[in-house]
Amino acid sequence: MGSDDYSDQGVHRDRGLVRVTGARLHNLRDVSVALPRDAIAAFTGVSGSGKSSLAFGTVYAESQRRYLESVAPYVRRLLHQAEDPDVEELTGMPPAVALSQRRTNPSMRSTVGTLSALGNTLRMLYSRAGDYPEGADRLDSDSFSPNTPAGACPDCEGQGEKYTATEETMVHDPGLSIREGAVTAWPGAWQGKNLRDILATLGYDVDRPWRDLPAADREWILFTDERPVVTVHPEREAHRIQRPYKGTYSSARSIVLKAFAEAKNEKRRDKVRAYLRQEPCPACHGKRLRPEALAVSFDGRDIAEAAALPLTALAEALRPHAGAEGAEGVLVGELLDRLRVLEDLGLGYLSAGRPAPTLSAGELQRLRLGSQLQAGLFGVVYILDEPSAGLHPSDTEALKRVLRDIRRAGNGVFLVEHDLDIVADSDWVVDVGPLAGEKGGEVLYSGPPAGLEGVAGSHTGRYLSGEAPALENRRRAPRGTLALRGVDRHNLRGLDLDLPLGTLTAVTGVSGSGKTTLLGAVADAAGENGDVKRVVTVDQRPIGRTPRSNLATYTNLFDTVRKLFASTGQAKAAGYTASRFSFNVAGGRCETCKGEGYLEVELLFLPSTYTPCTACHGARYNPETLAITYRGKTIADVLGLSVDAAAGFFADEPAAARALRALQDVGLGYLRLGQPATELSGGEAQRVKLAGELQRSPKRTLYLLDEPTTGLHPYDADILTAQLQALVDAGGTVVLAEHDLRVVAAADHVVDLGPGGGDAGGRVIAQGRPEDAASAEDGRTAPYLKEVLDRA
Amino acid sequence: MGSDDYSDQGVHRDRGLVRVTGARLHNLRDVSVALPRDAIAAFTGVSGSGKSSLAFGTVYAESQRRYLESVAPYVRRLLHQAEDPDVEELTGMPPAVALSQRRTNPSMRSTVGTLSALGNTLRMLYSRAGDYPEGADRLDSDSFSPNTPAGACPDCEGQGEKYTATEETMVHDPGLSIREGAVTAWPGAWQGKNLRDILATLGYDVDRPWRDLPAADREWILFTDERPVVTVHPEREAHRIQRPYKGTYSSARSIVLKAFAEAKNEKRRDKVRAYLRQEPCPACHGKRLRPEALAVSFDGRDIAEAAALPLTALAEALRPHAGAEGAEGVLVGELLDRLRVLEDLGLGYLSAGRPAPTLSAGELQRLRLGSQLQAGLFGVVYILDEPSAGLHPSDTEALKRVLRDIRRAGNGVFLVEHDLDIVADSDWVVDVGPLAGEKGGEVLYSGPPAGLEGVAGSHTGRYLSGEAPALENRRRAPRGTLALRGVDRHNLRGLDLDLPLGTLTAVTGVSGSGKTTLLGAVADAAGENGDVKRVVTVDQRPIGRTPRSNLATYTNLFDTVRKLFASTGQAKAAGYTASRFSFNVAGGRCETCKGEGYLEVELLFLPSTYTPCTACHGARYNPETLAITYRGKTIADVLGLSVDAAAGFFADEPAAARALRALQDVGLGYLRLGQPATELSGGEAQRVKLAGELQRSPKRTLYLLDEPTTGLHPYDADILTAQLQALVDAGGTVVLAEHDLRVVAAADHVVDLGPGGGDAGGRVIAQGRPEDAASAEDGRTAPYLKEVLDRA
Ligand SMILES: Nc1ncnc2c1ncn2[C@@H]1O[C@H](COP(=O)(O)OP(=O)(O)O)[C@@H](O)[C@H]1O
Ligand SMILES: Nc1ncnc2c1ncn2[C@@H]1O[C@H](COP(=O)(O)OP(=O)(O)O)[C@@H](O)[C@H]1O
Ligand SMILES: Nc1ncnc2c1ncn2[C@@H]1O[C@H](COP(=O)(O)OP(=O)(O)O)[C@@H](O)[C@H]1O
Ligand SMILES: Nc1ncnc2c1ncn2[C@@H]1O[C@H](COP(=O)(O)OP(=O)(O)O)[C@@H](O)[C@H]1O
Ligand SMILES: [Zn+2]
Ligand SMILES: [Zn+2]
Ligand SMILES: [Zn+2]
Ligand SMILES: [Zn+2]
Repeated sequence: MGSDDYSDQGVHRDRGLVRVTGARLHNLRDVSVALPRDAIAAFTGVSGSGKSSLAFGTVYAESQRRYLESVAPYVRRLLHQAEDPDVEELTGMPPAVALSQRRTNPSMRSTVGTLSALGNTLRMLYSRAGDYPEGADRLDSDSFSPNTPAGACPDCEGQGEKYTATEETMVHDPGLSIREGAVTAWPGAWQGKNLRDILATLGYDVDRPWRDLPAADREWILFTDERPVVTVHPEREAHRIQRPYKGTYSSARSIVLKAFAEAKNEKRRDKVRAYLRQEPCPACHGKRLRPEALAVSFDGRDIAEAAALPLTALAEALRPHAGAEGAEGVLVGELLDRLRVLEDLGLGYLSAGRPAPTLSAGELQRLRLGSQLQAGLFGVVYILDEPSAGLHPSDTEALKRVLRDIRRAGNGVFLVEHDLDIVADSDWVVDVGPLAGEKGGEVLYSGPPAGLEGVAGSHTGRYLSGEAPALENRRRAPRGTLALRGVDRHNLRGLDLDLPLGTLTAVTGVSGSGKTTLLGAVADAAGENGDVKRVVTVDQRPIGRTPRSNLATYTNLFDTVRKLFASTGQAKAAGYTASRFSFNVAGGRCETCKGEGYLEVELLFLPSTYTPCTACHGARYNPETLAITYRGKTIADVLGLSVDAAAGFFADEPAAARALRALQDVGLGYLRLGQPATELSGGEAQRVKLAGELQRSPKRTLYLLDEPTTGLHPYDADILTAQLQALVDAGGTVVLAEHDLRVVAAADHVVDLGPGGGDAGGRVIAQGRPEDAASAEDGRTAPYLKEVLDRA
Repeated sequence: MGSDDYSDQGVHRDRGLVRVTGARLHNLRDVSVALPRDAIAAFTGVSGSGKSSLAFGTVYAESQRRYLESVAPYVRRLLHQAEDPDVEELTGMPPAVALSQRRTNPSMRSTVGTLSALGNTLRMLYSRAGDYPEGADRLDSDSFSPNTPAGACPDCEGQGEKYTATEETMVHDPGLSIREGAVTAWPGAWQGKNLRDILATLGYDVDRPWRDLPAADREWILFTDERPVVTVHPEREAHRIQRPYKGTYSSARSIVLKAFAEAKNEKRRDKVRAYLRQEPCPACHGKRLRPEALAVSFDGRDIAEAAALPLTALAEALRPHAGAEGAEGVLVGELLDRLRVLEDLGLGYLSAGRPAPTLSAGELQRLRLGSQLQAGLFGVVYILDEPSAGLHPSDTEALKRVLRDIRRAGNGVFLVEHDLDIVADSDWVVDVGPLAGEKGGEVLYSGPPAGLEGVAGSHTGRYLSGEAPALENRRRAPRGTLALRGVDRHNLRGLDLDLPLGTLTAVTGVSGSGKTTLLGAVADAAGENGDVKRVVTVDQRPIGRTPRSNLATYTNLFDTVRKLFASTGQAKAAGYTASRFSFNVAGGRCETCKGEGYLEVELLFLPSTYTPCTACHGARYNPETLAITYRGKTIADVLGLSVDAAAGFFADEPAAARALRALQDVGLGYLRLGQPATELSGGEAQRVKLAGELQRSPKRTLYLLDEPTTGLHPYDADILTAQLQALVDAGGTVVLAEHDLRVVAAADHVVDLGPGGGDAGGRVIAQGRPEDAASAEDGRTAPYLKEVLDRA
């Protein structure tokens, strides 16, 4: 071994390179590439070119597989993904950590505080260094968490809310009699009639208007805890004969509360919620903690108040205590460290108590990124999925700083990224292309970003060099106005705004400035505007949560396809109708997996995972159904086609061709028809919805889109923008929240919100043509927009 | 980010060092130390000094914790160990892979082939490149595995064995009548009498000697499948009145087979096995595969025959095929690569089919080590637990080569190691000491091995420099002879040997040469020798498999302790007897965990894990019991004492003091009394057993020990040797298999087996005084032994 060669020899031997040889996953064409391990390396390329297949599906998956196989083979079995990386060799790749956007599934109870590990430290601060009332016992840190029995408010069990049923919530029109349906909260059909008959039997007047009944009667009917049993002689109805029966009465309130407690799904719960008033818990005033915990303060605030502050304000409140002795100083110091990172990542407007499910995918990823800096990992490679998603150009500097910090701590950073600023400033670029799917899958370039300009076939190179032409600005005149008045929501305070109709409007502003909130207000205002017939919110929410929903079903394309299969001679001979080709009903589907293609594996303590069906191996159909072919392909084969391939295959079937064309138009030609909804990113889901809309008439329709270019290469963003322009040309109105300034520069109208995020935002800083917004004095968007306009 | 600094900057910034600050786990005294990450670094120190606590408990556990926390927090929760690393800071440490000896729990069905991944490739070779009978279908590789339905012999379900009940196995003495117990296989007590009475009722003669019964009767009694029901009028017995009853007869064979199939534990199964003959399955001749698979050959052998070859022979058989075209050449090449590594690790004598449970911990670890070379990990640190365990000095060169290969592939290697040769040749040494437990826990030195000589207080330094005096050789004359004649077992073929009695004999030889096999033969021969009254085999098998067994219970020390607690005034007042202080019976123990201190968590698909009891937090007792103290300590406190501390505490309690003294004498003073048996290493378990023996008279006792110094620092090996010498001095005979040549040099007699392992071994190469063995011509031990003798 020799006693003096313990330097980084092993590492140097391979010149610090990760080498991929013969990668063939998805559309990758036997790709071989080398890139520096200790660098910030960006994987670029148009959507569907194969960036993720290379960075996540191959490099990450293979490194992860090997490490877990060595450390804990049975754990590896649990994390087993549907696909194994198909790669000949991977050398020089350390263990990796992936922070991707797709697989995020935060639990309802987690918050910004729990995800960033701020919460723990904050609770320790209150426990150790809080101001306690005279004589109070010192509490442990659990007592400051509403998620523990020790901390939860006993009245609302830590929910912070109470639901109450009142006369107003249960009787919507007191002018009606009971027979006419005064008690809106009653169930319908037989059960409602039963209650009415019981009341009649008990002597209540079911024919007088509700408001004219004696107060005591109304009280009893709605709120009694008694459950009298009476013999009911049902009133005769035409064509029906009913016998006397024993009926039990329950008050409307008890029926509603029981239904609420027992609701099986969110939809049902929402329905019942309509008969309930949701109020802050009177005991904790919505703070979710027991009184003993709320009696402890730090810097004059209880912990719930501290958690409600925007992180920036929290940091300001804590700063004066940084020098304190003992635990207080140490804990405050730690909190300030963490807060600084989160502010750097443009998340200073969030509060520690903000529930995770209300965060966007980009916010969530940056939050996780921030906490990684604290995790103290060394010698790993982080693999990130578009960390710039949702970030205003003015915030990318800070993101770059965080990435550099992670690298400086001894780790590599690989990112799939579209933001040209970040790409240009990284150490290395792996450009995949030239186009999507079968037209992509090759590495066009691997080297420092400067070398990418002029690489033949590289769209990234074209945009990076500024060679790509600017988008055309139509300079349309508005066809009308949508007036918003006194909007009070989140950080918008009494906002007035006149939004032009018949144009493309871009709303800009740093993360947290209020763009999404404004879109919500626009949707509400549009409902009351005569000039808008239809409001279409095209958001990034998933289009389905089970593998049962997929691209083909969601777009209705699948109906057409099934009819085509049913029309074949084979199918007719066998007597198969279109429903035979559905995997959602019995008949043609594989019954082992009930047509899902996957079997769910329930794991104790773990989220369930899916494994390919053992009977059909993912085909979803039974062998008889798969015996039927249309132009040589089975129904399962068709579900395996990409949109681009299907467009060729179905070229002469107008209905199918139209749906496929729309998907191609929004840059989704690379998706497979059978791609489960659960596998789509937020941006893809949004564009699928948009494609659906493209097939309807845009006349007097208002389209609202929240950062539609997230996850898109500039090349794809250009295609998408052209589609949106076409919607406006055909009589629609488009309003989008947007960070991509190429797109903003092509808008007819710009509304810049700001100047900052959260309380520091929510105001209109500038509005007008892009040129107007670019010359605004204090806008954080202005200088960046100006640069883009100048370049054009 | 700057486009030209993607070299190993991050790594260099910290000079390639892992830095531990403020480690306080177990006996570690706020240890801070730095060591090179990319080096081969040995952690040294006497047993119990804290090496493992530092290398495994701190560095490994913390690195693992962080990585898993980032990658899969819920997985981390599953792997959660009882203890968290107590360390202030750990920097510069990449993700780690531990191959330790303690936590090995290979399943019955795994073999050398499966553990080394040889098996898979071998099956693929037979599937793709085997010689098939004319017209036979090509089989897939699963068909060559007895563990799959496709491959298992249908007759024995892949077991390779069949159990049959014969007249010989069920009737041991045919001179007895049925009433006298001729049918040995019958159950005893009432059930046996019942069967006899039924036979009598049926008209069989239960008083004639078995051998005189008609053949047809004997056949029916033992083998019938009929189950006649008869009314039995039981024969009267003194003092008993029994009524007539309905009895059902079952043949002896059906009773035995049923009992065997339903046996609840190994002990019961062993008992029943005595009435069965175990035969190779007549269909597959013990090869476990179905005929179609066995019909396929490669190089003239079926796959079972290939798997039965020693790995060295397998490599020789494969070598001529390395140049073949296509799959054959590729697969053979891969097999030869893997085989070379295993041979290098001194495992060439094993066969691919050898079941994992028959391997020693050292063989198992080296096997895993070998397969890691193929795993292709990069940038991790391997942490190994005495990889030299069980290795002959002549094999350590190869081990060092493998460690260097792992490092050259871009990984670090940290090892807890006692072998001075390996320590001297590593890049770095972290020496922990000076002694065990509270007298250890400090880092005495961290640097290149050369610097360790002369470090004050370092026992490792003393031994490394040769400063430590040699062990005294008593040069005893034998008091008699134990003759072994014609021993035929494993690789010993007709071996004759005269073993001196009343001396200390060391058996040497490379791994696989037959040392363990010889010890077994000695044990058997001693049973028939009049001069040996008692044979004590002190092996490395675990002393218990549940946390219910621990050091105190195993050594009976706990009986004494419980009596002491029961004798306190408090206990007497409360009416508590000694059994109150047992955690194995209800009364004093915590009933939540039934006295285990831990709760078992059952996990789907995963081995169960243990978590501290939520009621007693590991104390094992209920609060009432814990209220009783003896000299200020509760019974739980006492279980928490180390042997060394307990020796002080119980100094004036003779019974306890003696047991504790014995444990100290074998170098186990650092163990805690309550240390669960499951936590002991093989070497520790062996020394615990030895300690038990030290308390009995060694007169005419033969002690057999298999590598008792495994896991021992030379300092501890010296102490242990002194104990063994004392046993001989007091009239015993000691025979040990041993690799540590300091110990061998102190033996009265040496038997060197060899020259190689497996078929290349099994012969006596030399025997006599150490000097004689050291001058043997072709012994692989001789040169190393000579060196040690010369040095003394
Ligand atoms: N799970 C999958 N199965 C089959 N094809 C896939 C899968 N995921 C992606 N693809 C296809 O692989 C190609 C590259 O996709 P991807 O790597 O996600 O591209 P990018 O990250 O560049 O947007 C596309 O044609 C896509 O449809
Ligand atoms: N569901 C919510 N609950 C509480 N506060 C919210 C919620 N959504 C947004 N906010 C707050 O409203 C402000 C504006 O947020 P948002 O409209 O999402 O900004 P943008 O879209 O510009 O990033 C921020 O301070 C944000 O924290
Ligand atoms: N799980 C444990 N709990 C408490 N003490 C322990 C535990 N394991 C080991 N120890 C103690 O820590 C000390 C160092 O042990 P260890 O690190 O195993 O030493 P080494 O590896 O040098 O033999 C010893 O006194 C031992 O008894
Ligand atoms: N349980 C077993 N089953 C089959 N072969 C065995 C078994 N135990 C040992 N052997 C074989 O016997 C030979 C001698 O092994 P062993 O006595 O364990 O050697 P040593 O103790 O010198 O390492 C080796 O070839 C080994 O593979
Ligand atoms: Zn409350
Ligand atoms: Zn199926
Ligand atoms: Zn068989
Ligand atoms: Zn307990």
